[in-house]
Amino acid sequence: MIHVSSYSCGKWTDTGKESELYSAVNGKPVAVFQESELDYAAMCRYAKEVGGPKIRELTIHERAFKIKFLAQHLLKQKEKYYNISTHTGATRRDSWIDIEGGILTAFGISSQARRNLSDLPWHVEGPEVTLSRKGTFTGQHICVPRPGVSVQINAFNFPVWGMLEKLAPAFIAGLPSIIKPSPTGSYLACSVFRDIISSGILPEGSVQFIAADVPGDLFDHLTSQDMVAFTGSAATGRKLKAHPSIIANSVHFNLEADSLNCSILGEDVSPNMEEFDLFIREVANEMTVKTGQKCTAIRRTIVPEHLLDDVISALRIRLENSPPGDPSQKETRMGPLASPEQAKRFEEQCQQLQEVTESVYAGAAINGAFTGAKLLVCHKPIETDTVHRVEAFGPLTTIMPYKTTEEAIAIANKADGSLAGSLFTNDDEIAKKIVMACAPYHGRFMVINRQSAGESTGHGAPIASLVHGGPGRAGGGEELGGYRAVLHNMQRVALQGSPTTLRNITAQHIKGAGTEEASVHPFKKYFEELRVGEALTTEKRTVTDKDVKDFAHLTGDHFYAHTDPDAAARSMFGKIVAHGYFVLSATAGLFVYPYEGPVLLNYGLEDLRFTAPVFPGDTIQAKLIVKRKTRRQKRETDKDPYGMVWFAVEVTNQENVLVAEYTILTLVKRKEKLDIDR
Amino acid sequence: MIHVSSYSCGKWTDTGKESELYSAVNGKPVAVFQESELDYAAMCRYAKEVGGPKIRELTIHERAFKIKFLAQHLLKQKEKYYNISTHTGATRRDSWIDIEGGILTAFGISSQARRNLSDLPWHVEGPEVTLSRKGTFTGQHICVPRPGVSVQINAFNFPVWGMLEKLAPAFIAGLPSIIKPSPTGSYLACSVFRDIISSGILPEGSVQFIAADVPGDLFDHLTSQDMVAFTGSAATGRKLKAHPSIIANSVHFNLEADSLNCSILGEDVSPNMEEFDLFIREVANEMTVKTGQKCTAIRRTIVPEHLLDDVISALRIRLENSPPGDPSQKETRMGPLASPEQAKRFEEQCQQLQEVTESVYAGAAINGAFTGAKLLVCHKPIETDTVHRVEAFGPLTTIMPYKTTEEAIAIANKADGSLAGSLFTNDDEIAKKIVMACAPYHGRFMVINRQSAGESTGHGAPIASLVHGGPGRAGGGEELGGYRAVLHNMQRVALQGSPTTLRNITAQHIKGAGTEEASVHPFKKYFEELRVGEALTTEKRTVTDKDVKDFAHLTGDHFYAHTDPDAAARSMFGKIVAHGYFVLSATAGLFVYPYEGPVLLNYGLEDLRFTAPVFPGDTIQAKLIVKRKTRRQKRETDKDPYGMVWFAVEVTNQENVLVAEYTILTLVKRKEKLDIDR
Repeated sequence: MIHVSSYSCGKWTDTGKESELYSAVNGKPVAVFQESELDYAAMCRYAKEVGGPKIRELTIHERAFKIKFLAQHLLKQKEKYYNISTHTGATRRDSWIDIEGGILTAFGISSQARRNLSDLPWHVEGPEVTLSRKGTFTGQHICVPRPGVSVQINAFNFPVWGMLEKLAPAFIAGLPSIIKPSPTGSYLACSVFRDIISSGILPEGSVQFIAADVPGDLFDHLTSQDMVAFTGSAATGRKLKAHPSIIANSVHFNLEADSLNCSILGEDVSPNMEEFDLFIREVANEMTVKTGQKCTAIRRTIVPEHLLDDVISALRIRLENSPPGDPSQKETRMGPLASPEQAKRFEEQCQQLQEVTESVYAGAAINGAFTGAKLLVCHKPIETDTVHRVEAFGPLTTIMPYKTTEEAIAIANKADGSLAGSLFTNDDEIAKKIVMACAPYHGRFMVINRQSAGESTGHGAPIASLVHGGPGRAGGGEELGGYRAVLHNMQRVALQGSPTTLRNITAQHIKGAGTEEASVHPFKKYFEELRVGEALTTEKRTVTDKDVKDFAHLTGDHFYAHTDPDAAARSMFGKIVAHGYFVLSATAGLFVYPYEGPVLLNYGLEDLRFTAPVFPGDTIQAKLIVKRKTRRQKRETDKDPYGMVWFAVEVTNQENVLVAEYTILTLVKRKEKLDIDR
Repeated sequence: MIHVSSYSCGKWTDTGKESELYSAVNGKPVAVFQESELDYAAMCRYAKEVGGPKIRELTIHERAFKIKFLAQHLLKQKEKYYNISTHTGATRRDSWIDIEGGILTAFGISSQARRNLSDLPWHVEGPEVTLSRKGTFTGQHICVPRPGVSVQINAFNFPVWGMLEKLAPAFIAGLPSIIKPSPTGSYLACSVFRDIISSGILPEGSVQFIAADVPGDLFDHLTSQDMVAFTGSAATGRKLKAHPSIIANSVHFNLEADSLNCSILGEDVSPNMEEFDLFIREVANEMTVKTGQKCTAIRRTIVPEHLLDDVISALRIRLENSPPGDPSQKETRMGPLASPEQAKRFEEQCQQLQEVTESVYAGAAINGAFTGAKLLVCHKPIETDTVHRVEAFGPLTTIMPYKTTEEAIAIANKADGSLAGSLFTNDDEIAKKIVMACAPYHGRFMVINRQSAGESTGHGAPIASLVHGGPGRAGGGEELGGYRAVLHNMQRVALQGSPTTLRNITAQHIKGAGTEEASVHPFKKYFEELRVGEALTTEKRTVTDKDVKDFAHLTGDHFYAHTDPDAAARSMFGKIVAHGYFVLSATAGLFVYPYEGPVLLNYGLEDLRFTAPVFPGDTIQAKLIVKRKTRRQKRETDKDPYGMVWFAVEVTNQENVLVAEYTILTLVKRKEKLDIDR
């Protein structure tokens, strides 16, 4: 028997009302659910006083590495979770989405954060904003961690994914988490949570766990610095979003509600086309995966009127091959619903829908939580509101015929906001029309044809690197989306001041900030030795006619502005100019240190602008400034650990006019391994 | 007498209850305010059916140009607005912030949108997201206009700025607007609005105007596709944010509430330092500009305890020189409050504050709305909640002494969320400490020292290119921020599909999308003739030892990996590699069309990555693909109109391995002038 209890203020609770949680498969007790009286004010305080400060000492990258190590740690124990997950009614495939899908999401957010965000406790966002003519007053957006707590309320259907997809970005942003799973399936969430605690990877106070049906007065203690991330029913979500504390303190509330997602079969598709089979497979799949208990499942199947019978027949065949069964058996394609209560609720929702639809298939229900898949047809989907409003949270879809693409769009958008939509078509004109009309009502929209189907991740799968969340009925929230997942948990603030002050505050070079001339060539320094703001001013070089000719000859770039005096005279510069790429290459010649040293290579370049022409006879000079640094994870194949250093390069002419500016990206050896390189 | 009435469904209303609006200066009637019975459902319908479709036919850039032309049109009539503005109690300087500040904000948002967003009806946001190994299934975020309406509720203090800073980004995003100003000062808003309508610049249905105290049942008609942007008191804002329609439909609600902003004098500053004078000037200025009726004004003045007397004396002197007076007179530095009602409310708020503070200066009140500036001191600011909660909306600040920097931070953050904070210090260590601790509680934070003061835009000024809005008490909203201002009004959606389908939908090249080989060299084509997805595959070139040696010699780049066989053998590549800049330059040699043509110049380069080494003996080949296009406004000085074309460049070796990829930015002549080039 698994013991589900709360982890509050760094301790597991060991008193409280106990109840049993039952297996969805055999109805036998799986776990004891111990609901303690929790001091929610103390939990918030503990998170803010113990966890927050420890997390915020770390840089965003250090936090992201911890999430990566945590994901690695959990992955090793996945078979344990698979075994437990079976009791929730999940087949191996269902559990994969929850368990490995959740762990992969944590990996994904970690890697996206390290790729896109600053290796500092805060993120320096975007370029500086020029606010003055002489450049003595500048703006810079930064995103900072809040000294608050992230309250995460998860739905029953994805105990692991739901927990990790919220915890990972909150932690990387610098926030401690208080996690409240749904009691249903909480034994799986709690098992994973116990491993998070026992791993010791996250600092003390980073996470707490609530074993309770309703989280008492927790919301009364929330402040302007806190966050709520809620996944669950639209009704509960809306109620919480309007909670007096949330409104009074402008608490950031992210709502992901179940929605009536649709999939559309394009009017170009005929039953003998690949896209028809792909569509049928996807709809049947979305109906049966997790026994249809997914907030992204296809509830509304929108098809050309003349294909209605074909679609019904094809779906029937597929569903007949997916009767509900024991999820631990390999051949089972669909398990039971999460509990007999869920089965009862599903039946009630079906009845509401059946009043306005025709039932064209109903798989046999067995007993308890085992329910058969159901197909309904709504013949007048434009006129019938119920089918766009009532969600039956189980293996059911309502088929809706349409006459024209315009009608298909109108039907799709009638749900007034969905997490995900999809379209199966081999005609990109139809795709464009439908996608652009449906996009404002969707958080994600997938178009499948024979080219993309093979590698498609599917209608129902939220992807760590794409935003998840939809407007209207779906709650109006936005989570995931790569590094955005982290920024959603931070406060964006516009800083203003002198460039030097902003550089000193943000720890990133700002254009115009005072620099310090390096006494040793920066390319001779190890990663740790390079300081932001350190600069190298190069020697000067006068560009000659011969340089330009030689460069044209060597590179084959004979563009008239560089080679033909008559044509150049007619150009916007009025005479021969040097190649921009020559200026770039000659500048590298000016700043490069030619001998072996810690700088391994220049692997890229950003934001290059040629700001003024360089004419033969002009003398150029460059300044190389350490702009930002990022430690990089040691890869298995590297002999040495290294870091990434961005250098700002400013090239000027003899009149001190800027002729080019850009940032070069270099790999630089580290002297020492990092603690985080384990 | 100005006539203030509603502009609903394309018509000015001409019936309804009439009342008079009085001058804040002389109490005489200025305008007739006609409050009609409005059919709010019809207004929403009209916006969505007439305005929305017309606006969304335009590209983001075309909408931005219209806003620019509108701003130019209004600027020509500014003297008329200045004359009217005097009646609101505003001095010339006060009116400048509202009138020219508002018009400049519209210009700024327009230019930021054109610089950063797609020249399409939607915005293609960020790079594509790789979702599959073979690249047949890809993701792309886009931001699309919603088929809804933007409801804009503005405060009385900035009738012009408030209207334009919301209207401009909503329109550029593709939304029609329904504007409801505060009745106080509505005669100025209405005068500008009349000029917007009569200019004919915006399409029919783009804007409507509500002359009413409370906007009836308007909120009951809002849907998931609508937006509300509210500026005003925290109490009203919170009430509206929790409106049942807003919650039920997840209506996007942006709340900017007045907040108790602070300015801090650093503990390093002594009275003989420049920063002391700068601080005093800023506090006095923020107290008296707009007679302190600014949601960003400095309500809390946080100073080192030992400087308390110096600060009081210095502020007194300044305030004595700013008695309230006739705002139309040049010498007047502070006008009256907006109305006798506002003066009464201000007095009540002062009384609440005076109960817990010491009054150290009170300028003489004259009569009506003319009130003197007031200085209070709160000796125990940590223990006293009232001073962080009660906002007196007039020329008042409460001085709060602190002992340590930690205490200053605690005091600053006690207001629990502010629009703007500032700090005067000449010590960047202190700046870093205070800014990083205060940032989570602020939407904007300014640090002033002797370097930045001269060009500073001031504590109180929201800047079009920086985000405006603050957490907690300030409402948790975010507006402005350059192109972000526009995106706040759009729906972000993650598209998934084959790269070719995504390219066909978004009208921007996506990595991996099928391309069409151009029959004519792209550099021979005019802007209008170039199609997204059109490609040029170049000849091949084998890189020789001599090429590398010659390039090193010509550029001076003798980095050992390119020149020293022994050292190169020890490098990560194991042998001599060609310079990355040679690959870049030789690629230009391969793709360039050398003769005069419509492509004027390559002015920049983005996202360059050297993805694999090129060794002598390798053969490179490039593919140039039209990625995106942006029409650019003709500048006065250009002989010809032109556009910007982004080309994606992919360089491969003889084994078809990608060795470099990047985007080049080119200026290309247009065949014809645009309609929008007036």
